[in-house]
Amino acid sequence: MTPHRSDRPPSPPRSGARIIAVGVDWGTTHRRGYALGPDGKTVAEHADGDGMLAARGRFAASLSGLLHTLGADDEPVPVVLSGMVGSAHGWVEAPYLPAPLDLRSLPQHLFELPSAMARDLDPAGPPGRRRIRIVPGCVLRLPQRVDVMRGEETQLLGALALGHAEGWFLLPGTHSKWVRMRAGVVTDFATYLTGELFALLCQQGTLAAAVGSEPTPHHADAFLQGLRAAASTALSNALFGCRARVVSGAMPTPQARSYLSGLLIGAEWHDVRRRSRGRMPKTVCVIAAPELATLHTEAARALGVTLELIDPHDAMRAALGVLLGSSSSG
Amino acid sequence: MTPHRSDRPPSPPRSGARIIAVGVDWGTTHRRGYALGPDGKTVAEHADGDGMLAARGRFAASLSGLLHTLGADDEPVPVVLSGMVGSAHGWVEAPYLPAPLDLRSLPQHLFELPSAMARDLDPAGPPGRRRIRIVPGCVLRLPQRVDVMRGEETQLLGALALGHAEGWFLLPGTHSKWVRMRAGVVTDFATYLTGELFALLCQQGTLAAAVGSEPTPHHADAFLQGLRAAASTALSNALFGCRARVVSGAMPTPQARSYLSGLLIGAEWHDVRRRSRGRMPKTVCVIAAPELATLHTEAARALGVTLELIDPHDAMRAALGVLLGSSSSG
Repeated sequence: MTPHRSDRPPSPPRSGARIIAVGVDWGTTHRRGYALGPDGKTVAEHADGDGMLAARGRFAASLSGLLHTLGADDEPVPVVLSGMVGSAHGWVEAPYLPAPLDLRSLPQHLFELPSAMARDLDPAGPPGRRRIRIVPGCVLRLPQRVDVMRGEETQLLGALALGHAEGWFLLPGTHSKWVRMRAGVVTDFATYLTGELFALLCQQGTLAAAVGSEPTPHHADAFLQGLRAAASTALSNALFGCRARVVSGAMPTPQARSYLSGLLIGAEWHDVRRRSRGRMPKTVCVIAAPELATLHTEAARALGVTLELIDPHDAMRAALGVLLGSSSSG
Repeated sequence: MTPHRSDRPPSPPRSGARIIAVGVDWGTTHRRGYALGPDGKTVAEHADGDGMLAARGRFAASLSGLLHTLGADDEPVPVVLSGMVGSAHGWVEAPYLPAPLDLRSLPQHLFELPSAMARDLDPAGPPGRRRIRIVPGCVLRLPQRVDVMRGEETQLLGALALGHAEGWFLLPGTHSKWVRMRAGVVTDFATYLTGELFALLCQQGTLAAAVGSEPTPHHADAFLQGLRAAASTALSNALFGCRARVVSGAMPTPQARSYLSGLLIGAEWHDVRRRSRGRMPKTVCVIAAPELATLHTEAARALGVTLELIDPHDAMRAALGVLLGSSSSG
């Protein structure tokens, strides 16, 4: 879980280049720091397992260690944090901004870490010397749906900075997010418990017996069957149907995991179709490492949708350029 | 789990009345035996925790104990078993009958326990003296949906014997079942992981944090909000929405469990509406103890549906009258 937790690593990969700002994508279990040079490009990056859960209770020390690793502790350069570090269970809660949210307004809405909390970083320096700001998350409040994001708004700002201002965006994972953007404004989004449900259902309960306790090779046909089955019924029924296929002999056990993947990922896609008035979008931008997008690539191909892949680190670098460019001049 | 596991209880509640047949509703964790008199009415009943899981590996001894408790071991009266005892993980697998299934044909399709397995019951008796038969389950095979039932077909036969031959039947529980019956024929059915998902999601993962670790008093408004929310989105999204309501302050934590119940039960009802061409059925027959039907009663009221409650023991007694009446004359 935490491959690197020492706050003062012995041999930081210092680049020697001048650093004018630091951004940190600080999630629940992992974080990644980006040190920006005067031209807005990253001169150093460092990823480790000191996510929100591991760093709880020692955020200042943890950030101090990261700045040291990045070679960014000589000067009190401005720092911008995004992700779960700004949640109620993080360092300090940065209140959500409501959707619809114009992503271009994010730099004006950064949440300032109280200077008393920031002072722990530089005990010797003068008060207020270190400026640390947190990107607020976004909340959607509709009569029938409430949803939240924290961290994804920064990725989306990056996608926007890279020229993607329109259409559907997908950030797959434990909590898969589908976002509708219009002219750089997040107008709607929905989170799916896809990865979490998959892990939970493979571990215990009725389905665990059906899918077996060990991972199996991917079975493309079973995945597509699950994808299609998700269109016609409620997920709580489709999940039982996975077991029913196995116990009735309609599907061999080694295919059940791929079928289950297809059901859970299919539930996302068919929901998006419903929100798009019954038609699948022609193109979807996926912000994910290629290895996290393989199942969605299969789904998109089967459903006749073109996927455009955006590297999440590229998105993050582009977002920090916007946030810290504004930050260093603001 | 197993309040009563001794195979030979010291003081069986013998009624003294003549017993001509025995039926056992033998589920995964519980079972209930019914001793029938010459007039077809039950003269003794006994329920205990010696379900399929607890009795595995000693089914003959377990049944022998139950017959003794019921006072039904003086004569080798015919026995009919229904439920998970007839599954691949039970005593012996009684193959599924395919849907559509005319329930009136069930007595002709009882699965005979191999006499070698039955002989263990009366080691001293002649071979074939004891006739034990298992009610087969039912499998639905559609291109997009596969489903199975085992035990419910017997309850449904009972409902039919009690005069309910048409419409929607609901058997709520860990695995909630909705069944479409036309003139005594099971034409369609769907199983929902409702109870199991509720328990799983309250125990661990993202939602567990939102709903808290302890049961809370039922909150009718939150339940109805969940019921409505289930109509408009995929369940894997609606589940995250429960958490989003809590973390965004839209819903207090003590209401989250009731909201979650509403979501899971709502997923069933909205699916039934979809299968009924967009209209809720006017009436639904629920085969359940009243305390297991309270949430569905609330849902039905909110959705303008009349519930007709059928006592599951009444249904079982009526079914056994049909199965064992035919059995004793067959």
